[in-house]
Amino acid sequence: MIVKRGAVLVLSGPSGAGKSSLINKIIDEIGDCYFSISTTTRPMRPGEREGVDYHFVSEEEFKKGIERDEFLEYALVHGNYYGTSLKPVKEALAQGKLVIFDIDVQGNVSVNSRLGDITTSVFIVPPSLSELERRLRARGTDSEEVIQQRIENAKKEIQRVSEYDFLLINDDLDTAAEQLKLIAKVARMKLPTEEINEFIQKWENI
Amino acid sequence: MIVKRGAVLVLSGPSGAGKSSLINKIIDEIGDCYFSISTTTRPMRPGEREGVDYHFVSEEEFKKGIERDEFLEYALVHGNYYGTSLKPVKEALAQGKLVIFDIDVQGNVSVNSRLGDITTSVFIVPPSLSELERRLRARGTDSEEVIQQRIENAKKEIQRVSEYDFLLINDDLDTAAEQLKLIAKVARMKLPTEEINEFIQKWENI
Repeated sequence: MIVKRGAVLVLSGPSGAGKSSLINKIIDEIGDCYFSISTTTRPMRPGEREGVDYHFVSEEEFKKGIERDEFLEYALVHGNYYGTSLKPVKEALAQGKLVIFDIDVQGNVSVNSRLGDITTSVFIVPPSLSELERRLRARGTDSEEVIQQRIENAKKEIQRVSEYDFLLINDDLDTAAEQLKLIAKVARMKLPTEEINEFIQKWENI
Repeated sequence: MIVKRGAVLVLSGPSGAGKSSLINKIIDEIGDCYFSISTTTRPMRPGEREGVDYHFVSEEEFKKGIERDEFLEYALVHGNYYGTSLKPVKEALAQGKLVIFDIDVQGNVSVNSRLGDITTSVFIVPPSLSELERRLRARGTDSEEVIQQRIENAKKEIQRVSEYDFLLINDDLDTAAEQLKLIAKVARMKLPTEEINEFIQKWENI
C-alpha cells in the first residue's frame, strides 16, 4: 500500500556542499515536493527574488512572527534573522507533499522537535575541508572574510553529524544525487505517529 | 561515494505477515546479504533443515552460549530458546554485508542496543487482523491452538510498532516488496558511529 503522505526531508551542510545542485538534480524525479523557502531580514542581494530565494521581511515583521509563534524554527545569524514559517509547511504536509528544508544544525533540532516522527535528516558534505575551500573560491561570490566564516562554521557543524540520519559525502554529483533520491523516496514511507496509532486501533477491528 | 559497508535490517511482524515471501522476492536484487539464521532448542519439524531454517542445538549447548555471551539476543518462547549468535553477524558486517534479521520486538530492542547506529527496523503486517487469521488458516500448517496463540501475539506486538523505523503494510506483495527493497538499499547508507567519527577527524586534514 503506497499512500502519498506528508513527510519531511532536512538537508544540512556547509554552503559549498552542493545541496542546491543535488536538489535541482532530483526534484523532478522525486515529484510532489514543497521546497521550504525561508524568511529573512537580511537585505536582498543582486539576482535574488522575493519568494524564490527567500521571503524578505523587515525586522519588525519578523519579530511579530516570533511573538505569534508563526515559525517552525528561526535563528539570528550574523545579525540577520532567518526562519521557516509553519503555515505553508503544514499546508504542504496536509497535501501529502515531501517538504524539503535546507537548514542548519540548529534548524534540524527545531524541526525534529516538532515533526520528528516524519522527518529524515541528511548532512551533506564535500569530501574534505580543502575541497570545500576550493569550491567556495571557485564560486567567486563570497569575499575572503565570508569564505573564512563559512569554513569555520563548517568545522563546527560537522561535529554534529551524528544528530542526522544520514551523512552524504558529495564527491561525485551523480552518485550523491542517486543516493539522495533513494533517501527521499524512503523518507516518504515514514508514518506520522498519529497515523500509526489509528492503524493499530483499526487493525484489530477490520 | 558508495562504499559497501555492513548494515543491519531488522524485520519483525506476526507470522503470516509475509516476511519470508517478501525477503525471497528481493534478496537477489539487494545483493550481498547475510540472512541471520537463529539458533533454537526446539525440536526440528518435518521438512526443516539444520543451518537453513535454524541451527538446532540442545538446551545444554544453548545455555553454555548464554554464559559465554555468544548471543546478540535470545529469548525463551513457549518453553524453547531462540537466539542469534553474534559471531557470524560480526563476520558478515566486516565483509560489508547487509545482515537481515527476522526477529520479534524484543529481539529488535537487543539488536538496537548493540548495533543501533547501523540498524534499520521494519515492522511488517497484513492489512488487518482478520486477514492475518485468513492467511494463517490458508497455510494449513498450524493447529487451531497455535493459530490463536499467533493472533494473541500479533495483537501484543503491534502495540510496539512505534519502536520501528518503518511500518510496512503488506496488502499487495509486489508493492510491499518494492518498498522493502528501497528501505534495504537506504539501510546500507547508514554509517557506523565509529566511521562517522573517523570521517570528521580526517575531514579537516585532507
